[in-house]
Amino acid sequence: MDKNYTSGWKKNDGGKVFFIHHRVRYADTDKMDMVYHGSYIPMLEAARVDTLREVGWVYDEMEKAGILLPVVDLQVKYFIPARYDQILRIETRVIERPTSRLKFSFDICHENDVLVKAQVCLAFVDASTSRPTRAPEALIEALDSHGLIH
Amino acid sequence: MDKNYTSGWKKNDGGKVFFIHHRVRYADTDKMDMVYHGSYIPMLEAARVDTLREVGWVYDEMEKAGILLPVVDLQVKYFIPARYDQILRIETRVIERPTSRLKFSFDICHENDVLVKAQVCLAFVDASTSRPTRAPEALIEALDSHGLIH
Amino acid sequence: MDKNYTSGWKKNDGGKVFFIHHRVRYADTDKMDMVYHGSYIPMLEAARVDTLREVGWVYDEMEKAGILLPVVDLQVKYFIPARYDQILRIETRVIERPTSRLKFSFDICHENDVLVKAQVCLAFVDASTSRPTRAPEALIEALDSHGLIH
Amino acid sequence: MDKNYTSGWKKNDGGKVFFIHHRVRYADTDKMDMVYHGSYIPMLEAARVDTLREVGWVYDEMEKAGILLPVVDLQVKYFIPARYDQILRIETRVIERPTSRLKFSFDICHENDVLVKAQVCLAFVDASTSRPTRAPEALIEALDSHGLIH
Repeated sequence: MDKNYTSGWKKNDGGKVFFIHHRVRYADTDKMDMVYHGSYIPMLEAARVDTLREVGWVYDEMEKAGILLPVVDLQVKYFIPARYDQILRIETRVIERPTSRLKFSFDICHENDVLVKAQVCLAFVDASTSRPTRAPEALIEALDSHGLIH
Repeated sequence: MDKNYTSGWKKNDGGKVFFIHHRVRYADTDKMDMVYHGSYIPMLEAARVDTLREVGWVYDEMEKAGILLPVVDLQVKYFIPARYDQILRIETRVIERPTSRLKFSFDICHENDVLVKAQVCLAFVDASTSRPTRAPEALIEALDSHGLIH
Repeated sequence: MDKNYTSGWKKNDGGKVFFIHHRVRYADTDKMDMVYHGSYIPMLEAARVDTLREVGWVYDEMEKAGILLPVVDLQVKYFIPARYDQILRIETRVIERPTSRLKFSFDICHENDVLVKAQVCLAFVDASTSRPTRAPEALIEALDSHGLIH
Repeated sequence: MDKNYTSGWKKNDGGKVFFIHHRVRYADTDKMDMVYHGSYIPMLEAARVDTLREVGWVYDEMEKAGILLPVVDLQVKYFIPARYDQILRIETRVIERPTSRLKFSFDICHENDVLVKAQVCLAFVDASTSRPTRAPEALIEALDSHGLIH
């Protein structure tokens, strides 16, 4: 692991996942000497935003174009505690072809261990009407062509 | 709502819930002008720890007595955004009689609206062996006698 | 200390301070088994917003009326670590008569100990022009008449 | 700026600074559509820990060897708001030759702008006695030989 926290692609379960790295900080830990269970949430956010960026969709530009993506559902399962100073690898894929929802699935890993599994469901919302809208077809194609939809 | 963020009991669905209040701070919000989805996690923690305290079980003392309660599963559904300066009411109950797991269910409310629903499952762990252990019988009775197990 | 985290007034150094309480959560701690140094920042925010509210100035309404109060300077001195489950008392006063700046001074205490001392300087900004503006005279009077300006 | 958030060295003011990058996440922002003033604190932590690592001192190993480095003083000046999705460059140097204290100075920059300036003072503490201790001579030399002491 080099010091620059490289991101990249990995084959996985017949599809591909995009991964980023996060070095565990004191700020992430709690007095049980492990990562606080809520501290993984911003890691998942960074992982999915970087995944979208990688396939050509910058969330900040989507917002400016009037598409919001609030989180509507979050599920996290904690198997093994992450520890201070570990470099975590957050692997991201999409489950199900997006409709008006976009469902991400994440593995948070340290070396060969899966520490945490998570699913986050986002809703496409039209900023001008505040109402649900459908995923842009080009976004679905971009995710699909990169092998991200499992 | 008085300024002192009173906690208390409420009848609900044939059982009782214990509630605490949390005033939304700038720190909890994000640029979508709502509470960041991860900011609810510490509110849930405060709600369940205060609920246990209310029925006579101080988590800090449980830890010192050798019982740890790490979070093993978290599920959150987001219905309506919470906004800055709102006073949120976090209602806590227990679902299922505890075994080696303790399952809390939460409603995060503003006035008459349920904004967020969450479930958090904790595991009883023996600190000396780091292995799962059973819920203390007296804790189950305390929860039960207060009408908290739904 | 009752369970409801009462806030209130206290005489102090020839003036008065307004205090709120915060119960330390797991979320606030780090692996050194103390409160993470960054976790005090939202406590200071809650303390000053509740202090302003107490003297009749609701920050949320000030914003809606076009006055923003971004933080421009923060100083924190850490003397004694705060620990999990302690109820901290955050005492707030104003130092210097406000001009285009509002300077708060805080003591974060546990029982009779001052654990942390902090100063936070906010700037009055006119939301319509994004330029500095003067403190409303009525706000200065409200702070002064409550003995908050030390 | 490549996607991998490269860290590195830069000449600055007759000495050198070590920089890391941080991409601003939703989690870092607040409803004023800027980075919350407390969200910079973990960035400073990551910056100084990576700087120490770069010169051969892994903080996690220092702790295991019995040297703790709690934060005793923090000063932050906010000049320009950081915005969502910006890649911030956190530049770290040491001010004054360490004694029993280690004083870092930081510039948080976006492109050519310095957004935030901060100083963080840490105390060397002997974990076995909980008393102040002197900085290891080899650490001072490592910082000095890299041009980090300004």
